[in-house]
Amino acid sequence: MSLPVKLLGEFLGTALLVAAVVGSGIMASALSEDIGVVLFLNAFATVLALGVLIFLFLPISGAQFNPAVTVIMGLRKELSVTSALLYIVVQILGGLTGVALGNVMFGGVALEFSQNPRDSFELLIGEAVATAGLIFLILLTVARDKAPLLAILVPAWIGAAYFFTSSTSFANPAVTIARMFTNTFTGIAPASVVPFIAAQILGALIGWALALLFITPTQKETHNV
Amino acid sequence: MSLPVKLLGEFLGTALLVAAVVGSGIMASALSEDIGVVLFLNAFATVLALGVLIFLFLPISGAQFNPAVTVIMGLRKELSVTSALLYIVVQILGGLTGVALGNVMFGGVALEFSQNPRDSFELLIGEAVATAGLIFLILLTVARDKAPLLAILVPAWIGAAYFFTSSTSFANPAVTIARMFTNTFTGIAPASVVPFIAAQILGALIGWALALLFITPTQKETHNV
Amino acid sequence: MSLPVKLLGEFLGTALLVAAVVGSGIMASALSEDIGVVLFLNAFATVLALGVLIFLFLPISGAQFNPAVTVIMGLRKELSVTSALLYIVVQILGGLTGVALGNVMFGGVALEFSQNPRDSFELLIGEAVATAGLIFLILLTVARDKAPLLAILVPAWIGAAYFFTSSTSFANPAVTIARMFTNTFTGIAPASVVPFIAAQILGALIGWALALLFITPTQKETHNV
Amino acid sequence: MSLPVKLLGEFLGTALLVAAVVGSGIMASALSEDIGVVLFLNAFATVLALGVLIFLFLPISGAQFNPAVTVIMGLRKELSVTSALLYIVVQILGGLTGVALGNVMFGGVALEFSQNPRDSFELLIGEAVATAGLIFLILLTVARDKAPLLAILVPAWIGAAYFFTSSTSFANPAVTIARMFTNTFTGIAPASVVPFIAAQILGALIGWALALLFITPTQKETHNV
Repeated sequence: MSLPVKLLGEFLGTALLVAAVVGSGIMASALSEDIGVVLFLNAFATVLALGVLIFLFLPISGAQFNPAVTVIMGLRKELSVTSALLYIVVQILGGLTGVALGNVMFGGVALEFSQNPRDSFELLIGEAVATAGLIFLILLTVARDKAPLLAILVPAWIGAAYFFTSSTSFANPAVTIARMFTNTFTGIAPASVVPFIAAQILGALIGWALALLFITPTQKETHNV
Repeated sequence: MSLPVKLLGEFLGTALLVAAVVGSGIMASALSEDIGVVLFLNAFATVLALGVLIFLFLPISGAQFNPAVTVIMGLRKELSVTSALLYIVVQILGGLTGVALGNVMFGGVALEFSQNPRDSFELLIGEAVATAGLIFLILLTVARDKAPLLAILVPAWIGAAYFFTSSTSFANPAVTIARMFTNTFTGIAPASVVPFIAAQILGALIGWALALLFITPTQKETHNV
Repeated sequence: MSLPVKLLGEFLGTALLVAAVVGSGIMASALSEDIGVVLFLNAFATVLALGVLIFLFLPISGAQFNPAVTVIMGLRKELSVTSALLYIVVQILGGLTGVALGNVMFGGVALEFSQNPRDSFELLIGEAVATAGLIFLILLTVARDKAPLLAILVPAWIGAAYFFTSSTSFANPAVTIARMFTNTFTGIAPASVVPFIAAQILGALIGWALALLFITPTQKETHNV
Repeated sequence: MSLPVKLLGEFLGTALLVAAVVGSGIMASALSEDIGVVLFLNAFATVLALGVLIFLFLPISGAQFNPAVTVIMGLRKELSVTSALLYIVVQILGGLTGVALGNVMFGGVALEFSQNPRDSFELLIGEAVATAGLIFLILLTVARDKAPLLAILVPAWIGAAYFFTSSTSFANPAVTIARMFTNTFTGIAPASVVPFIAAQILGALIGWALALLFITPTQKETHNV
């Protein structure tokens, strides 16, 4: 695929992912007063949409949809610096488009700041754990030449982390930025965004380091070829 | 398979799909007062039934069950005009049979007009998004010679769209027409049907256009052979 | 596998299936007052247990666990009359063992008559639909040489039918007899058992007839060889 | 893989598994007052995390994460005594690390004794059944050379057993010990731990004995080679 097609893939995939996250959050909180049910419906829609989107865009752009993933791939030289930067730009633009689509589909204003603070320190531990696991999972799966299984494994991990990490697992800087612009269930107040992204990057590096302990030299070589 | 067997497949598959949608809606709204739970049970039953039905009828009729899919396949010349028209007729008849079965299984009148208006403008955006994604997904999956995975991918997409699109994702004109005839949870008032179908057809065309951006010439040729 | 091992497989599989159905029903109704949630937890446990049990016993006994399936297989001469009768006996004994295990695991009496009447006429339509779909699904899947997928397809069908058929889909005479002996959420009063089983047998025959319309002669021959 | 890498795998896998169990229990009980919903969210996160972790660590350490499994594997001579003992030590240490992570991620004290007694006799039957099924499943699946499917089958079994066994299916001595140290939804009072572990070991032996009835000599030989 040519670079523009790849960028279009990252844009569209991230947009639909964010629309699924934000839209299902709005729908669920309108339907139920049980917040456990609301978060479950939010996770359920996210997990299924994420699986479909990874399947669709994996052969096109690698289905990263996530600057934390792209940064690690760039540091590992599996993506040129230019490509990585362009990927991140379109991921962020895609996320903004997706949050607007999610808001508008439910009759809201396209972009509006969230007033939902997420600022306890322990949430940052949650973000680091969720992102570390995500990167660890991706690197091991790719090293074993099983990338197509990411369409199952990544949603499974995110679905679990929705509930077992205290932050409900954003684990994605582009999604975090986008969610700043919806004043609904899945929003995050602007003041909480930078610490979240910092925790995500830290987690990504931890996940990478852990993965290196388990990737055998043979796998590394094979993969470089 | 001969054309009559294919038509029988489309009829039976669409009937069972609609019976699953309508029946689970009646059951769920009788069981729970939490509308989040009700819609989830409705989606859960739909997702599982849809997966089984696509698996069963894919090698028989292509498991389209959906005039929006059939129209696109006809425009792409993968189905003759006559076959496409007959497919659409039996899909609609199947849907009507299915809604009657769903109603009767729960002790209701076979066919009764719904009094459930679904007429906010934003619902139409939801329908367009849901149907665009559905067509995009089908065309890319078929172009990659992975049609059997549609038994997983289509239900996953519909399951997500139940919650992230504002319309709960009808995404199917035959199902929409059928749901006009149940005055229960999943019904749609007759006045809302035409706008819904128009939005679905528009979405289908958008999905087709988007798919063309990602299907490489090689894939197109391979598929034509 | 020798016949005694097959019979042991049918016994153990049916026992664990019924224990899962009955036990999860008791657990769920103790945990939640929302009957939608209760039935979902019941279905969730059933679907997962059924998938595991079919996987485990498919290569051993064919993982029928169900006299309605065994009768059809006997009529199709895929099982001798003697084997079929013995299968049905151990399925019923397994079911009784399973219901006792389910009751005892939750501190109840081993066997106790249910006082839960399930006697509306429309429930019988539900049973016929659920069982017809089950037999149709099994016969088509086997005719396509994809029996291992039954470990996914059968639970998916049953999980959907829990909600879209009015009877919550017993679809199995051995399970129906066993559920007569638990006075809990999943019980069925003795007076309702015979009509349920009659509807299941009728549904099984309908499912078989429908399957014959779609199984091509080639498939039939291949399967007979 | 070298033994230290295997031990690290068992440590990390068990830690993340326990963090998922404990963390999702804290999250869910903070979100919902419907205990059915709470236990479902707990099970949902556990099932998904367990599937990902088994996939990741199966080729590294065998993804046992469970002294009951390791004991059986040791008795079957598929693991040396030294390896088995070390596995069990790191599983317990991993579990303790995981419970601390789960507690801290939600702003709690790292380790705190649970005051949640789980001491009805019938819970021990539940543990024996859950663990017997787990061992039975693992041994048959390995004997059929289908170990990779354990990433699906084990979570499915545990997910079902969360609801159909009265004990919610701990089925794992390392996890049981760890859960002694969280005074939250998933905790277990120290006094209940020894009986639980005894029931798990008994169940494991039953599961092994049952498996031997179904593993054919050929499969045994093939596996020994």
